[in-house]
Amino acid sequence: MTAQVQALYDFTGEPGTTEMSITTGEILTLLNTEIGEGWWEGRNSKGETGLFPAAYVRKISPEDAVHGKAAPAAPRYDQAADDWGDQQYSAGDNNYQRAASHEDGWDDDWDDDTYSEIGPAQQKSHQAQQAPLAPLPGMPISDYNHQISDDTTSNFGSTVGTVRKNKFAPSSKVSGESYLLGTLNVEVPDSEKVYIIQDEDGYIWSPIPQPYCVTVASPKKESKFKGIKSFIAYQLTPSFNNIQVSRRYKHFDWLHERLQEKFTLIPIPPLPDKTISGRYDEQLIERRRVQLQEFVDWMCRHPVLSKSEVWQHFLTCTDEKRWKAGKRQAERDALLGLNYCISLVVPEKALLQSQVDHITEQCHTFINSMDTSVKSVSNMCLAQTKRFQGPYKTDCQKVGEAFYNLGNALSLDEGTIVSTSKLTSAIKLTGGAYIEIGRMYDEQPKYDWEPLGDKFHLYKGIVGSFPDVLGNHKGAVQKKRECERLTAEHKMEVAQLNEVLRRTDVISYALLAEINHFKAERTTDIKATMQKFLRQQITFYKKIVDKLETTLQQYDE
Amino acid sequence: MTAQVQALYDFTGEPGTTEMSITTGEILTLLNTEIGEGWWEGRNSKGETGLFPAAYVRKISPEDAVHGKAAPAAPRYDQAADDWGDQQYSAGDNNYQRAASHEDGWDDDWDDDTYSEIGPAQQKSHQAQQAPLAPLPGMPISDYNHQISDDTTSNFGSTVGTVRKNKFAPSSKVSGESYLLGTLNVEVPDSEKVYIIQDEDGYIWSPIPQPYCVTVASPKKESKFKGIKSFIAYQLTPSFNNIQVSRRYKHFDWLHERLQEKFTLIPIPPLPDKTISGRYDEQLIERRRVQLQEFVDWMCRHPVLSKSEVWQHFLTCTDEKRWKAGKRQAERDALLGLNYCISLVVPEKALLQSQVDHITEQCHTFINSMDTSVKSVSNMCLAQTKRFQGPYKTDCQKVGEAFYNLGNALSLDEGTIVSTSKLTSAIKLTGGAYIEIGRMYDEQPKYDWEPLGDKFHLYKGIVGSFPDVLGNHKGAVQKKRECERLTAEHKMEVAQLNEVLRRTDVISYALLAEINHFKAERTTDIKATMQKFLRQQITFYKKIVDKLETTLQQYDE
Repeated sequence: MTAQVQALYDFTGEPGTTEMSITTGEILTLLNTEIGEGWWEGRNSKGETGLFPAAYVRKISPEDAVHGKAAPAAPRYDQAADDWGDQQYSAGDNNYQRAASHEDGWDDDWDDDTYSEIGPAQQKSHQAQQAPLAPLPGMPISDYNHQISDDTTSNFGSTVGTVRKNKFAPSSKVSGESYLLGTLNVEVPDSEKVYIIQDEDGYIWSPIPQPYCVTVASPKKESKFKGIKSFIAYQLTPSFNNIQVSRRYKHFDWLHERLQEKFTLIPIPPLPDKTISGRYDEQLIERRRVQLQEFVDWMCRHPVLSKSEVWQHFLTCTDEKRWKAGKRQAERDALLGLNYCISLVVPEKALLQSQVDHITEQCHTFINSMDTSVKSVSNMCLAQTKRFQGPYKTDCQKVGEAFYNLGNALSLDEGTIVSTSKLTSAIKLTGGAYIEIGRMYDEQPKYDWEPLGDKFHLYKGIVGSFPDVLGNHKGAVQKKRECERLTAEHKMEVAQLNEVLRRTDVISYALLAEINHFKAERTTDIKATMQKFLRQQITFYKKIVDKLETTLQQYDE
Repeated sequence: MTAQVQALYDFTGEPGTTEMSITTGEILTLLNTEIGEGWWEGRNSKGETGLFPAAYVRKISPEDAVHGKAAPAAPRYDQAADDWGDQQYSAGDNNYQRAASHEDGWDDDWDDDTYSEIGPAQQKSHQAQQAPLAPLPGMPISDYNHQISDDTTSNFGSTVGTVRKNKFAPSSKVSGESYLLGTLNVEVPDSEKVYIIQDEDGYIWSPIPQPYCVTVASPKKESKFKGIKSFIAYQLTPSFNNIQVSRRYKHFDWLHERLQEKFTLIPIPPLPDKTISGRYDEQLIERRRVQLQEFVDWMCRHPVLSKSEVWQHFLTCTDEKRWKAGKRQAERDALLGLNYCISLVVPEKALLQSQVDHITEQCHTFINSMDTSVKSVSNMCLAQTKRFQGPYKTDCQKVGEAFYNLGNALSLDEGTIVSTSKLTSAIKLTGGAYIEIGRMYDEQPKYDWEPLGDKFHLYKGIVGSFPDVLGNHKGAVQKKRECERLTAEHKMEVAQLNEVLRRTDVISYALLAEINHFKAERTTDIKATMQKFLRQQITFYKKIVDKLETTLQQYDE
């Protein structure tokens, strides 16, 4: 069967290369998934073939293509505002998708190992076994599923189908509606409760009592199956125990999916770009390490994420058996999406809906504007890196060569005048200095443009997730309004409505705390980032000045 | 009649503009000479039309084109080595060419005034009147002309025709053969004698007893004919009298031609490039001023040129009547080309031909190599200027805009956290700083790349003239050998040969002195140039550092 994929994002291929431009929604015939480095090869409707990033497309079933309903564009804010239905998928869907993607090498582009620890055959059956979610004791997951499937005709979540209706997500679900409607009967132990408190800036997540950090260090190439398969492992060392754990990209990827399905009111920092640029493997691996460090730093500084069980398990587990047990437990987590709010303890005070609306609208405007400017900084960093390593370097070298050749030409006529020799040597050294400055331009991006780009890769991810967060909150508010209408029509008890109102407030408190957390984080973080960037730029231009001053001294008698 | 021109040099048109590439030797049909700024419009044999620099072509007569003999390529050293015959033209030819070029606006590209002080009609008749050279008292110019025309079948000067045989130079001539053969009977007054002496570095021109300098200042737009015609006048002030004279480009051009026909063993510094680049009239005019200053400086520092009568007249004459008288006198100068050597007083010692050959060969090699590297530095300066004012500026501005927009986006969400305001303002200022650095890149070439380019424009001209200088010397040496053969065949008296040998030595002394002068000049001059250039570069990068440091301080609390 000829596999088909659909573009989720626009991608502009580099002209003159094997890359091919694709447009969101475009259907392509898949020709080769074994290209490596995150690239797939395909053919478009015009018959052109070329490479595109695997991450920019999704596989589709033939029916999707025929009925033309498989056009889930990349979630953008505007769309999310209309189709604000819950867009994350449940753990069950996800495993299914993971199993499928393991087959087609989805995470193959990061290392050579497409297999699990156990091997491809076992892996598949292992995951297939997990696909139907085993309910935890005390969690009426079947009730929940029933409830939701009964509810598919209501406004709430009715648009989910347009976004996730494909073979990987056959049934639409809204995580957490059971919480809102009070049908979720889970007791959260005190140790797992998360507090939202009020400080001078508004409602905030209760600060981390014992802050810690985690270093992502020296990626190592490891291999298994007697060296047939090799992969990169990153060494993580948390400051609270100083015990190093080794994690591969697929572990990060698995963690990221768990976090995304669990925390729908908290933007999860992005993993490294799959289409990262770099000329050597070592540079690629180092850039990914830096971006993983950014991911880890953001996680550590977040009061909710930093204490989440799946994250702690990821950071600390060193035993393979315990790893698998923890993995299964995380995949069975019942408190996903809005259901997670049952863990929250918020101030008593009821929130004014108009105030909440005002803040979310302001946030919406802000995020829209940030999205553009964060992408523009990110693109600019990429462009500057290319400029420094390309034309800037080349220009300096041309200047250097012109001077060097001048020195050479002048030295052809030496001998009678003593001072000429000193001069020609100085001119040749000037040539050498500019060639060296060219090399400095080549090296420089790793000190300024690339780290800045890595930071803005993080912000691009956070800012890009915010529309979903706002959409999820908006969904809850609309559900609340629906309940208010039902009560007005005497179809819902006032007591039940009050419960819904209270729980909607909990959801709003969570959003407000997250908005404030993002604000506080970025204020400190962007300041430090800009300072670091400017210091590196200053160092660079000072080095040029030093180089030229040393060169100038060569002309002294 | 359709005028035709032939390309003297290769010119590569800027792609995407109205410019057209032309190849040396190519014949083009002239369509329009009224384009201005030194450009003409033409059509090539493929039927393509476009603009090219007027200075890169010469007009040809229809016969030339038909017989295909009008292919005088730009003189290069290799060719000059073979066709070493005297390539300058006499004053008579020159006036003829000047008159013709006045008609077609040859020097029209420098100012709007194609007319002389008197007006077009008088100018033409005035110059036509001068075309037949009036012999000076005591100068047997008719004998000289007769001698030369009798000699056209000899080796000496036989290749001249391929270089200058066009309607502007109907008869071939070798300036100065009469000197070599002892038929020039001129008494040079002691005050006009030029001495060559021996110092530790070899034979040199006797140094200038009272060095002076001349400033070329503040070009002014002047006009005549009640403002219909306007032109640029440069103000020259010699240090020896402090009396300012006003000179237009056509005066410089006239001076340059006089110098070139008189001093065939001394490279004459070039006038400003006609195809100088610049976006505004003011910039163009200023670049020309700087290049004129380079010309003037070189003249002042040259022991022979600085004291020449025509130059002194150019520098000091303030009276229109005296100006015309001096002009006529210069145009009637008998001591042109090798004949000028009758003014020289050289050491008694006879020169070893093998030593002279060694030095000229070394000079030949050196000049060949210098020609390439001087052109390459010159092109590099032009390229760097374009890079600084184009992509470097634009890149900085893009960086600036990305930061500025980021600051703007962040400021949308201000109000509750006080420190944000300080941060967004700092980020906006960072954006502003990079936009300002972009402007600095735009401004910078006038402090480093353009002056460096102007200096190397001078060297390009000097180095480019050296092949002719060497060729002129070589011609004299060959003539000497011819005389030696004639003597061996008893067709020439030994006493007459000894006179020829002595005079050939005078010519060789002049060449050696000039080679040494150029060496000494460039050693000092290139050193100062490089130092000045590097200081400007250092200042520039220091300014960037300063700008960034000030910006960094904005982030402090």
